Amino acid sequence: MTPSKTPRRPTAPRQRAAGRQDWSTWPHYDAAASGFKGYWYPVVWSNRVTGKPSAFTLCGERVVLIRDAGTAYALHDRCPHRGVPLSYGKQEFPGTLSCPYHGWTFGLADGVLSAVITDGPDSPICGKVSVRTYPVAERLGMVWVYVPIADEEPHPIDEQLPEELVGNAFMLGARMEPRVGNWRLACENGYDEGHAKYLHRTALWRLFKAMPTWNTTRIERKGRWIFRVQEEQYWEADFPGLGVWTNKRWWKLRPPARGASNIGNTGASGGVDPVIAEQEFPGFASVSMPGVLRIAYPNFIHYEFYVPVDADNHQYVGVMVNFRKGLGPLVFSVKYLAWIRWLFHGQFSGQDAWMVEATHCPPERLYRPDVSLTSWRSLAEGDYRDKLAALGLAEEDTK
Amino acid sequence: MTPSKTPRRPTAPRQRAAGRQDWSTWPHYDAAASGFKGYWYPVVWSNRVTGKPSAFTLCGERVVLIRDAGTAYALHDRCPHRGVPLSYGKQEFPGTLSCPYHGWTFGLADGVLSAVITDGPDSPICGKVSVRTYPVAERLGMVWVYVPIADEEPHPIDEQLPEELVGNAFMLGARMEPRVGNWRLACENGYDEGHAKYLHRTALWRLFKAMPTWNTTRIERKGRWIFRVQEEQYWEADFPGLGVWTNKRWWKLRPPARGASNIGNTGASGGVDPVIAEQEFPGFASVSMPGVLRIAYPNFIHYEFYVPVDADNHQYVGVMVNFRKGLGPLVFSVKYLAWIRWLFHGQFSGQDAWMVEATHCPPERLYRPDVSLTSWRSLAEGDYRDKLAALGLAEEDTK
Amino acid sequence: MTPSKTPRRPTAPRQRAAGRQDWSTWPHYDAAASGFKGYWYPVVWSNRVTGKPSAFTLCGERVVLIRDAGTAYALHDRCPHRGVPLSYGKQEFPGTLSCPYHGWTFGLADGVLSAVITDGPDSPICGKVSVRTYPVAERLGMVWVYVPIADEEPHPIDEQLPEELVGNAFMLGARMEPRVGNWRLACENGYDEGHAKYLHRTALWRLFKAMPTWNTTRIERKGRWIFRVQEEQYWEADFPGLGVWTNKRWWKLRPPARGASNIGNTGASGGVDPVIAEQEFPGFASVSMPGVLRIAYPNFIHYEFYVPVDADNHQYVGVMVNFRKGLGPLVFSVKYLAWIRWLFHGQFSGQDAWMVEATHCPPERLYRPDVSLTSWRSLAEGDYRDKLAALGLAEEDTK
Repeated sequence: MTPSKTPRRPTAPRQRAAGRQDWSTWPHYDAAASGFKGYWYPVVWSNRVTGKPSAFTLCGERVVLIRDAGTAYALHDRCPHRGVPLSYGKQEFPGTLSCPYHGWTFGLADGVLSAVITDGPDSPICGKVSVRTYPVAERLGMVWVYVPIADEEPHPIDEQLPEELVGNAFMLGARMEPRVGNWRLACENGYDEGHAKYLHRTALWRLFKAMPTWNTTRIERKGRWIFRVQEEQYWEADFPGLGVWTNKRWWKLRPPARGASNIGNTGASGGVDPVIAEQEFPGFASVSMPGVLRIAYPNFIHYEFYVPVDADNHQYVGVMVNFRKGLGPLVFSVKYLAWIRWLFHGQFSGQDAWMVEATHCPPERLYRPDVSLTSWRSLAEGDYRDKLAALGLAEEDTK
Repeated sequence: MTPSKTPRRPTAPRQRAAGRQDWSTWPHYDAAASGFKGYWYPVVWSNRVTGKPSAFTLCGERVVLIRDAGTAYALHDRCPHRGVPLSYGKQEFPGTLSCPYHGWTFGLADGVLSAVITDGPDSPICGKVSVRTYPVAERLGMVWVYVPIADEEPHPIDEQLPEELVGNAFMLGARMEPRVGNWRLACENGYDEGHAKYLHRTALWRLFKAMPTWNTTRIERKGRWIFRVQEEQYWEADFPGLGVWTNKRWWKLRPPARGASNIGNTGASGGVDPVIAEQEFPGFASVSMPGVLRIAYPNFIHYEFYVPVDADNHQYVGVMVNFRKGLGPLVFSVKYLAWIRWLFHGQFSGQDAWMVEATHCPPERLYRPDVSLTSWRSLAEGDYRDKLAALGLAEEDTK
Repeated sequence: MTPSKTPRRPTAPRQRAAGRQDWSTWPHYDAAASGFKGYWYPVVWSNRVTGKPSAFTLCGERVVLIRDAGTAYALHDRCPHRGVPLSYGKQEFPGTLSCPYHGWTFGLADGVLSAVITDGPDSPICGKVSVRTYPVAERLGMVWVYVPIADEEPHPIDEQLPEELVGNAFMLGARMEPRVGNWRLACENGYDEGHAKYLHRTALWRLFKAMPTWNTTRIERKGRWIFRVQEEQYWEADFPGLGVWTNKRWWKLRPPARGASNIGNTGASGGVDPVIAEQEFPGFASVSMPGVLRIAYPNFIHYEFYVPVDADNHQYVGVMVNFRKGLGPLVFSVKYLAWIRWLFHGQFSGQDAWMVEATHCPPERLYRPDVSLTSWRSLAEGDYRDKLAALGLAEEDTK
């Protein structure tokens, strides 16, 4: 072996754009690593909440869930006596939950210590201790929990659900799973304008439908939501000095001749479901607080809820909803179980999970399509600031 | 699916008793997360300490154990040369232990560097370096190690052992195992008046013997020990608004008609072993420093030693002792191996291990039966303070 | 069981030599926990660097390696957009690497962002962002990477390689593997005069060749290297009060009658390879910056490169080189694969890995043979200080 090469060295001057070093532009958003309190979050399937308690961590708080006489309850999952999780215990009397260690027994509705089995009926501590309770609701076959800011009353959950899910009948297919990574990175990934066209180009979900190579983007606010709209779409691009890039393939459907639809990202198909049409969505993808993504297709809507667990973990809840009547729901259910669940909520969404786990920012250096991200951050920042103001809370009170 | 329910909300005002936020009431106890130095602890079975060195962590200090010419020795498990554990080494010369890296060879009795194999007989460092040695004793078939406070001399181990184990012949069955959790939580669990009646109600060990539902408790000091005495015992209780609770079952022995025995917690059986009777224990359960629990039954005594490993781990040592003569010890051994070991030192004690691992306090909110816990903490606090004073140590010297 | 023994206590006064508490004597060495920047390090086999990117952490910096048109490149393994590792991406255009998330595409030679697939050919961010590139060279069948200090130019790799490996033809056998422990402890272990005679006495590699029990040591600098020379060798030693120690065995070769050779540590064998002889090595073992060990045998030279990964991990690179011509290289290769690889780079070196992982210092208490360690530290300290001075860097600039 005779060495011959000389070391290679950079030929161009090293230049770096500084980029954004932190998220201090959006201080509440920056502080919400463990989630925004003051909202409803779907935590578990309704049929998993039974008389046997189970645990969930929401916004960094450990919660025990239990069902009694048909109603689901949520309490802080810590016995104030010695700190044992109440979710290790069981229901000894109707309407209560007992700690496994000494039989401290708390009322499910109010959290008040109503009996201590090992201290007799005259135990003087009864009524003097309580555990925190959390408002609970059930929607979409799931149990939703609200972690209040200070002592606020929760807003009605129907004011927070996507509007079209209140008052309309529908059929849904869904997937809930724990994922690694902060909930904000998951939400930003979901609403991110730029990534799908490249990251998901290999997804089987897009096997027959091309996506643009690139496009220009407009953000439009409507009510609680911001929509992103692809204005000009380019199916091929010739990058100077590098070559041509295209997302078109001979086996894929041809993209529409002109203009983008506001429903679906490959142009309208045969027709749009009337419930979806009447929503008059300005764009394909929209997002609202506290991290709800809505993707409108002609015949169904896909939602993603990014549920904050703690600073390093979130729960992904993917929901596909169909509003058709008659045999429609049945057909949809078969389609969901046969392939949507695996292709979309599985492989496609798995690419997102991979990126959410791999993302490490700030620092970050944003580019044109990231107007979607900064618009979402500004929406979150403003809505939360307004919420605090409406509660009459100085911001320090929420720490 | 048509949403219908409205969110459930707490109906009672949220009230919380502040409780105890820390253990500053007992400052030495609070500081003893890694154990109290200045006491003897059982670390390993005697027959496990051989000419091949082994390691144990006691009170946060890494110790190497080795036997030479029949005597067990304990040294600090770190070669002062480069920090390699001496427990990785071997005995190259009688009465010594050599580090595996460079052959630094330390005397077992004094810890002094007596030779460096790789530096020849004239190595000038010999005699100038030493590793710390720890006093060692053997009792109950176990090796006990003493971690001194500063440079104190150890007290005789027989002054620390339960009195009835000194001078009497006995047969024992025992179990040693590493457990997760701080030693103080393990000791508090052991002496805890309240938990057994609820936590252990399902233990097979109590299959035929009912425990009270609740009782009043008196703590009585006698010598180095505090005893807890069940004064009034209640076998059933009717909790207002909830229902009746009983620990009685048709297949269990009937509780005594009146009053509690000081031996066993279900009343005296056919007779009490004379050695146990002559101890005149004021109560069933007692505890002494540095974390020794004694439970007196009519025919045997059960001890638990909570050995501090580090702040997050301890070693459980459960010992069942029988003082009978003649065939008694043999019968006891068969019983121990046949069922005591599995039911009591296994399943019953496993429920305790589960709770010790699950306990997270302070903060804590104590109730009436916890007079047992606070009495133990006060005992520990006072005994240790007296010990420091007797050593003439300012408290800062022990840090 | 009747207790009888009294506790054993130390009989000699406890004495401790304070020893060295830190490495502040060598401040740059002390600060170089993650390695010295400004040097070439072998990171991976050349044939493992292909068009598919791979990752390596060097001096605490995450690097992505990729080959394009025959040339290997190294870039900082973080996309500046959102922090995704570029090693998760792929090459979409010649001479570039694309991030998997949004198709940000960087030039391999200069690191400059040359296209963003999802933002079209007119993306205004192109040319304004870049990732750091690292100088790369290939020698000994491996890819070497240079992490510059500030913006320095790298020195030619041939000025850093062992001199005899530049300009001579040779055959090599080598092993690269990740190991636990700081690179400095690995390097110190390699050059350590004292340990081999004791630690490696059981190595099969030394099955037939005795090592001295102890010896006196002289350190001699020659060029970039310091050599350690065994001056007086003692094959047996009688340790007072303990006994005789010998490394001789009846089946081992007899040690040389008088004096030590500078080639091999058991005296010269039949003859010395002319290339090795002409180096006129003053001693058997030598070391140079940035952590390169050279052990000269009569017929081959063994090198160890200790590649800093991060403060807790390093990569071991063991290389055995033979300079013979004709059939020599073939014979060497067969010998290497048949037994050198397993005995020397495997079992023998595995004993070192065990000790490097077990070493925890400072604090440390050095002895006579450790002149080898302190000489190496002084060499590193001085060479690095000179290097900074030559770069005109104030020392603060390198933080």
